[in-house]
Amino acid sequence: MYTQKSFAKGSTAPGPVTQGTIRLYSMRFCPFAQRTRLVLQAKGIKHEIVNINLKEKPDWFLEKNPLGLVPALETPSGQVIYESPITCEYLDEVYTDNKLLPSDPFEKAQQKMMMEHYSKVTPYFYKIPMGRRNGEDVSALEGELKEKLAKLNEHLKKTKSNYFAGNSITMIDYMMWPWFERLEVMELKHCLDGTPELKKWTERMFEDPAVKDTMHSPDTHKAFYQTYVAGKPDYDYGL
Amino acid sequence: MYTQKSFAKGSTAPGPVTQGTIRLYSMRFCPFAQRTRLVLQAKGIKHEIVNINLKEKPDWFLEKNPLGLVPALETPSGQVIYESPITCEYLDEVYTDNKLLPSDPFEKAQQKMMMEHYSKVTPYFYKIPMGRRNGEDVSALEGELKEKLAKLNEHLKKTKSNYFAGNSITMIDYMMWPWFERLEVMELKHCLDGTPELKKWTERMFEDPAVKDTMHSPDTHKAFYQTYVAGKPDYDYGL
Repeated sequence: MYTQKSFAKGSTAPGPVTQGTIRLYSMRFCPFAQRTRLVLQAKGIKHEIVNINLKEKPDWFLEKNPLGLVPALETPSGQVIYESPITCEYLDEVYTDNKLLPSDPFEKAQQKMMMEHYSKVTPYFYKIPMGRRNGEDVSALEGELKEKLAKLNEHLKKTKSNYFAGNSITMIDYMMWPWFERLEVMELKHCLDGTPELKKWTERMFEDPAVKDTMHSPDTHKAFYQTYVAGKPDYDYGL
Repeated sequence: MYTQKSFAKGSTAPGPVTQGTIRLYSMRFCPFAQRTRLVLQAKGIKHEIVNINLKEKPDWFLEKNPLGLVPALETPSGQVIYESPITCEYLDEVYTDNKLLPSDPFEKAQQKMMMEHYSKVTPYFYKIPMGRRNGEDVSALEGELKEKLAKLNEHLKKTKSNYFAGNSITMIDYMMWPWFERLEVMELKHCLDGTPELKKWTERMFEDPAVKDTMHSPDTHKAFYQTYVAGKPDYDYGL
């Protein structure tokens, strides 16, 4: 289902969502949409994926989802849910098998506080490559990113755990993952040199079945990224 | 308990949190902290409030809460929770009386999507007054704010409801409220002229017991605001 080409302006809308399944509107290379794909896989939820051409969005998509954002979920009754953390928490509440969020309110709050911190990390994955493309000196930005990664490393070290909320994968690991998969493409892999625990975490994550199922190889990421930078994103690259 | 003066650098830390209660670190004029105060009041949760001097934060506060943010909750066992939406959801999960968030996952997701939209409204309550103080033309910013308020008005009109998620107050109303209480101080009240449903909502909100309990009069807001703008915020104004 991941191999379906993207729907663009002028396309015919897909039919209604089949009962007993859920639909994800996605883009194959979007890290935010990958969060939801990871949760769908990890929880074993029956779903279909409709890829969207984000540069030329279909009118029928904008009608369903006026902000035109991916990821967005659609249920058989036509309910639409967007914003990656909201889609993931929704899935974890509706599909009660393989819970990814803790039921204890404080532990759940801890995951959300970690998410808040992490939301200040992701911008660097865009700012640094963009700065480099513009020929700017990005060493200060890299320094800031390394500081933030050192804090994540410290958390793993202090809690002596394999993942961010204990010794098994939970929601917070999946929320953080997509940008780490892209470190090589973003030429930021050296930023992990001073953070051995975090590096080990990425190695463990690469072995997770949901990660394996949703990931692209560095070469594929690179090829897409080049079309993206050139202003002509090839959303169907490799299909 | 709201009348307690703020703790500043050099102050003695308050004792441990009494069993059966919860402590809120707050600042009397902070709209984000007011969200948590509203939830504590509306749910009738036994609590104490410790006001913090945000310009000269006590060392003991930074030890408990390294980012130094208010609102922050502390439990008798020393757990600390910060970020206003996280504190409010935590309270609603732990204290199950008078639920403010719906239990249906889609309805809950809807409230969170509304919160996401609203997070793009609050910056105008800062940008416009600041622009005015700098002698800038803020009419474009006011136009953008009015457009966003028109969307909120449209939501109330379309759903024909008194509050943002039906005919009784729920979490989303309390999350949005604090900035509407400050419209007069921010000299933005005229922005409601074209949004009659939203204006009626503010009138209804002013009658809510939790709002009445946590609010300040426009004069008090104004007086604090002037000390804030002058760079010498009087956190204890009026005590």
